[in-house]
Amino acid sequence: MSRKGTLFVITGPSGAGKGTVLKKVIQSLDRLYFSVSATTRAPREGELDGVHYHFLTHEQFERLIAEERLLEYAQYAKNYYGTPLDPALQHLEMGEDVILEIELQGALQVKKRLPQSVPVFIAPPSFAELENRLRGRGTETEEVILQRLSIARKECAAMDQFRYVVVNDQADTAADELRSIILAHRCLTENRGFTLE
Amino acid sequence: MSRKGTLFVITGPSGAGKGTVLKKVIQSLDRLYFSVSATTRAPREGELDGVHYHFLTHEQFERLIAEERLLEYAQYAKNYYGTPLDPALQHLEMGEDVILEIELQGALQVKKRLPQSVPVFIAPPSFAELENRLRGRGTETEEVILQRLSIARKECAAMDQFRYVVVNDQADTAADELRSIILAHRCLTENRGFTLE
Repeated sequence: MSRKGTLFVITGPSGAGKGTVLKKVIQSLDRLYFSVSATTRAPREGELDGVHYHFLTHEQFERLIAEERLLEYAQYAKNYYGTPLDPALQHLEMGEDVILEIELQGALQVKKRLPQSVPVFIAPPSFAELENRLRGRGTETEEVILQRLSIARKECAAMDQFRYVVVNDQADTAADELRSIILAHRCLTENRGFTLE
Repeated sequence: MSRKGTLFVITGPSGAGKGTVLKKVIQSLDRLYFSVSATTRAPREGELDGVHYHFLTHEQFERLIAEERLLEYAQYAKNYYGTPLDPALQHLEMGEDVILEIELQGALQVKKRLPQSVPVFIAPPSFAELENRLRGRGTETEEVILQRLSIARKECAAMDQFRYVVVNDQADTAADELRSIILAHRCLTENRGFTLE
């Protein structure tokens, strides 16, 4: 009996509550590897290499690009951000499921590169609620909030390109749904690798 | 927001524990309709029309066959057994999921007739455990047990024709898996019918 792992690509706008939902799912399932992104930006206080990010030099990152060892990558404010391919493949071969939490453009890149991956969009229940959540943090200026809302509207327009949509109204319900999606894929006949003896 | 229901076709050999698993799943999910079979055999003591079976006359049953209003049917010991199409379609249109628990040949018929249905095979963890369970009931003769085991081996050979396999080692785990399969299908983008406003 040998099972194959599945790569789940999770995206959704800022304020959809991806972090909370994913934390609950990771606590409720075993055999789940949470992919760690690579970046060339400097670590912030308290950030650990290999935990929060793989902190790389520009040269190291560009070697990964040249060797096609990134599932996706992008450049923001002169720094690279990307998803290393090797650890994901290693965990999939060990029969573990892999979770990537990445922004929309990265998710669409992975979907193209690995069509067998499972794209999941975490959506807020409404734009009004999304605005409440972004304002509720109380840490951003009005300009930043309006900018985030505008980006969120654009990102949500891509929702139908995702296999699954998890609506995060209540975090427990959303976590139960995402956990169910992962568990259901483990039961697919071709993934299960079950032989009755 | 209007969601579409999904038809789940559940099969598995005698002794796999379908009944126990389904009972737990039905208790744990709403919007789930459990299809009631039709038969021409006489009701046994305590059996209620419309609850345990739809009890029909031969003429009524043959009219359903002629009008193609059965999802599948078979004849055993001169009696008909089958799955009425109309109630299943009605509940699917109401956005409810429908569960059919039927034997292997019926399940394969439904799979052909409604390719959008989701076939799930409930398997015992091993043939040794299946034999334990069949013997544990203590109600059957050796001949009947050996016959059931032989049928079970043939049925399990068809397992790979099912989209999902739920291995019923522990009933709670198996019920959690089947519930997850149903919940995951509710989150499929095309079933969810979610529009963000």
